[in-house]
Amino acid sequence: MAILQPIIDLAEICYAHGLRHVVLSPGSRSAALTLAFSRHGGFQIHPVMDERSAGFIALGMAQQLKIPVVVLCTSGSAAYNLAPAIAEAYFQHIPLLILTADRPKEWIHQHDGQTIYQSELYGKHVKKSYEFSSDYGNDDVAWSVNRIGNDAINLASALSYGPVHINVPIREPFYPTGSENLVPSEKVRIVKRAPVEKVLSTKMWHELLNEWDDASKILIVGGQHPKSDRLNKALSRISEELDVPVVGDSISNLEGSDQFIYHQDLILLLENSQELAPDLLVTYGLSLMSKELKTFLRNHPAVCHWHIGEDNIWTDPIKTVTRQLAVSDEYFFENLFEKIDYQLFVQNSDSENDSSFLAKWLSKSAIVRVNIENYLLNLSKINDLTSIDIVIKSLKSNSQLHIGNSMPIRYVNALGKSNALTGVFCNRGTSGIDGCVSTTIGAAMVNNTPTVLLVGDVAFLYDRNGLLINTLPSNLKIIVLNNGGGNIFRMIDGPAKLPELGSYFETKHGFNAKRTAEDSGLFYIAVHDLKSLHKNLTVFLDHTDISLMEIFTDPAHNADVWKGLKSRIREIN
Amino acid sequence: MAILQPIIDLAEICYAHGLRHVVLSPGSRSAALTLAFSRHGGFQIHPVMDERSAGFIALGMAQQLKIPVVVLCTSGSAAYNLAPAIAEAYFQHIPLLILTADRPKEWIHQHDGQTIYQSELYGKHVKKSYEFSSDYGNDDVAWSVNRIGNDAINLASALSYGPVHINVPIREPFYPTGSENLVPSEKVRIVKRAPVEKVLSTKMWHELLNEWDDASKILIVGGQHPKSDRLNKALSRISEELDVPVVGDSISNLEGSDQFIYHQDLILLLENSQELAPDLLVTYGLSLMSKELKTFLRNHPAVCHWHIGEDNIWTDPIKTVTRQLAVSDEYFFENLFEKIDYQLFVQNSDSENDSSFLAKWLSKSAIVRVNIENYLLNLSKINDLTSIDIVIKSLKSNSQLHIGNSMPIRYVNALGKSNALTGVFCNRGTSGIDGCVSTTIGAAMVNNTPTVLLVGDVAFLYDRNGLLINTLPSNLKIIVLNNGGGNIFRMIDGPAKLPELGSYFETKHGFNAKRTAEDSGLFYIAVHDLKSLHKNLTVFLDHTDISLMEIFTDPAHNADVWKGLKSRIREIN
Repeated sequence: MAILQPIIDLAEICYAHGLRHVVLSPGSRSAALTLAFSRHGGFQIHPVMDERSAGFIALGMAQQLKIPVVVLCTSGSAAYNLAPAIAEAYFQHIPLLILTADRPKEWIHQHDGQTIYQSELYGKHVKKSYEFSSDYGNDDVAWSVNRIGNDAINLASALSYGPVHINVPIREPFYPTGSENLVPSEKVRIVKRAPVEKVLSTKMWHELLNEWDDASKILIVGGQHPKSDRLNKALSRISEELDVPVVGDSISNLEGSDQFIYHQDLILLLENSQELAPDLLVTYGLSLMSKELKTFLRNHPAVCHWHIGEDNIWTDPIKTVTRQLAVSDEYFFENLFEKIDYQLFVQNSDSENDSSFLAKWLSKSAIVRVNIENYLLNLSKINDLTSIDIVIKSLKSNSQLHIGNSMPIRYVNALGKSNALTGVFCNRGTSGIDGCVSTTIGAAMVNNTPTVLLVGDVAFLYDRNGLLINTLPSNLKIIVLNNGGGNIFRMIDGPAKLPELGSYFETKHGFNAKRTAEDSGLFYIAVHDLKSLHKNLTVFLDHTDISLMEIFTDPAHNADVWKGLKSRIREIN
Repeated sequence: MAILQPIIDLAEICYAHGLRHVVLSPGSRSAALTLAFSRHGGFQIHPVMDERSAGFIALGMAQQLKIPVVVLCTSGSAAYNLAPAIAEAYFQHIPLLILTADRPKEWIHQHDGQTIYQSELYGKHVKKSYEFSSDYGNDDVAWSVNRIGNDAINLASALSYGPVHINVPIREPFYPTGSENLVPSEKVRIVKRAPVEKVLSTKMWHELLNEWDDASKILIVGGQHPKSDRLNKALSRISEELDVPVVGDSISNLEGSDQFIYHQDLILLLENSQELAPDLLVTYGLSLMSKELKTFLRNHPAVCHWHIGEDNIWTDPIKTVTRQLAVSDEYFFENLFEKIDYQLFVQNSDSENDSSFLAKWLSKSAIVRVNIENYLLNLSKINDLTSIDIVIKSLKSNSQLHIGNSMPIRYVNALGKSNALTGVFCNRGTSGIDGCVSTTIGAAMVNNTPTVLLVGDVAFLYDRNGLLINTLPSNLKIIVLNNGGGNIFRMIDGPAKLPELGSYFETKHGFNAKRTAEDSGLFYIAVHDLKSLHKNLTVFLDHTDISLMEIFTDPAHNADVWKGLKSRIREIN
């Protein structure tokens, strides 16, 4: 095993860079990695048998910690099962250090067990894919393992965060003999990369302020973004003191101002929505949830569109970007406010900004909010929309909310945020239903706050293997909205009208979460009506251990409710 | 939808090439594909919500049918979840036609939902990856969709079989309007590729026969191979009439001669095994299960080693190949027998072949067989080895047996085949535990024979989502050997002695299959001792619907039994 000293030292490199969590799946080929990390003593080790879940559990942890989590697996299809989580991490900018044990090169495609083509296995879905040489006894190899280890962690931790892969070929013997110590070398080189601050020049700011001044209708739109107090404070001041509407999705995690605008999907259904079109659009963050907003902004293109972001790949989903500002959004909006505020103060300048533009957004937002509330008041039969509304309103402010893809995130987004939470999360990197449960498990494992998942039945069942671990976090509460299939297909006119709806789109089923919950020792409550939901919700949320509430709803009624809400908003004038 | 006529015609191309089964997972982006195949009328459509299982279910079908099965999914991580099954299909030579719906190119990495880098998504794990252009209204594109469709099917169906991927970018609208028919064009071009026969020249045969004649100890070794009556007949005659030992794994599917030799793992533990080393080694088929046999043949290299196979990538796991014969094994062994037989007849030649070589293999094989039986007789406490022995002996000859990876396949291989079956299967392409359940479900769906799966608890739990489909095949019987973890790690000296054995290698757990079985309506029996196994087995195997028997065993006892068997064989002299 001493010949694998560079691999033992890799654990020390990870530790020195501040990494503390390792999600591992069992394997012989990966034994040296497993032992290097578990015997180091500085790591929390989380064994997970299904690598697909392991990947998402690690993602959930790293989403919270904002430092890389180590994911470690054996060779072959084990490594391939990590791929969905890695793609999500890549597009959602979550730092992971993926270590895949492998056979040495000469054994690839030679009918040896658990062997696939692991070099560059994840294609373009990692920031970089490295591979060690297999002769660890060689001095140059030892140097390169150290260098690559440091480099990989620095890269995963650099903005924008993301997954980095190291393929680790290992020869037999895999296990140490009794006499071998597995302690790091006395001196392990650590290469720290100094963070650089990206700022804009005074000249550039001048140019931007001129453009800002020339605009009369300025709109700020946030995409997916982790909760940031600095950003929220800056945006609050911009909105409140400069009369600029700031619009965000639930996963934009805007908080701190009554003026922040949510449920834009519904607002844009109102009459005269064209008056909400900006001439200067400022966007930041990752994907935009609201298709209505994207379409609206494409159809009413702003004259200028600044996109703020540190992504290495520039995106333009609204099709109108005119300036790319590769600085942090916190730096940008803080400085923007200060510079405009100063300018207004010294020059007493007459900014072009039209405060009636904000007023229009706010008034329409208020109309929508009142109409949603009134609409919900008239619904007496249980349904997904009402259930989600009740759940969100019951969450304590120290809770964090995870939302499954497909309908739940659309419901939450339409309802808008109604109370403070420590964070709202959804895997919108690839928008898959495949890892919602495991992601939330990972998040709850590194949190002390109540961590609530709202998820549909299909997404829950898809990822139920996340629950196949020995120690589940007690602060996790899972709420499954069971409408017996992929309800989203009933919401869209296209499939809803097809004879194939039930069989090939919605794929109706009779499964529920009860036995899966029982298998993992979860406290389980089934809810079939609103009375029972109200009665049980507090008990459920206050339960001291992990628990699962399954809310059974009628898919046809859900579709009526959802379409009814949109119709009601459309009919306002 | 008419603009997608080339995609509608693709279904007709598949039909004309003889494809009849489509495994699909729901999605909007893939709606045109779903409708093209479901409305065609000629296909059996199998909806599966979890794409990882969908891939393996399709693999299980194609493994039986030996013609491509269509796998169809929506864009994003859905497509990535197919990857483990595709890698297995690639290395196991199973024909699949993978159709992944995608966004048009311009939307890749532009923060659109369910979008990843799907071009060449499966890397080297497909025979080829195609991609359609997204402007289906263009005549050249229509031509290319037709050409690629034909080409992809011809390629997947050409020896050696394998998965072929077509990435299918599709724009909105996804759903047909009421007035649109989705019928294939009147004339859809079908391109059939004539099969070619690969034969060896008379001169080549002459050379081979000389080498054969010069050898005195000839050994034929089969790797993984589907059951072939032609091959079995040819090999029976070679073994019986030319006194050549033929050795195979359980998944070599040798059958028809008492002289065929199994449990080579154990035979090679006997004293004087070096006398079993060949001077001419002839191998065919895919991976060799037995590590002992590979090591033995490497340590006692044959002078000549012929490998027969039609794989496009040549393998040399024994490290001794001297001739690559790219013809079918059926052709090769049939012709070999006839030519040698004729030569013996006309020349009355004195072949060098030493019949005592066969006698040594057979006598050692007989010793092992008797010792296994005696060893098993003395085991009164339930354990995995005994349970598997009892199950295999109870199978009717019209049954087919699927075996999970890790320990179950090793047990079956050590026990050797004891009765005729219609086929023995195990995913030894990548040897993963990830798709055993789904593969067997797929196989049972296209079979009328009793289809039995022997699988460990970890592999069962890993792939339990295969059971999340509405109509499970009634001929499927699942036997879960529940030893509460990854028992294999207790069998290997390395991890067995580590303090980390339970936590990070075996990953002990308390899960069982009961509730999962109940969720899917399976008849369930739990077995805790041998008496109960004997009592329930026939009822279980004869049950008219899908059923699951869970055999609970003690992992430490299993390890003692397995090591005890090997010790017993080693002690024979």
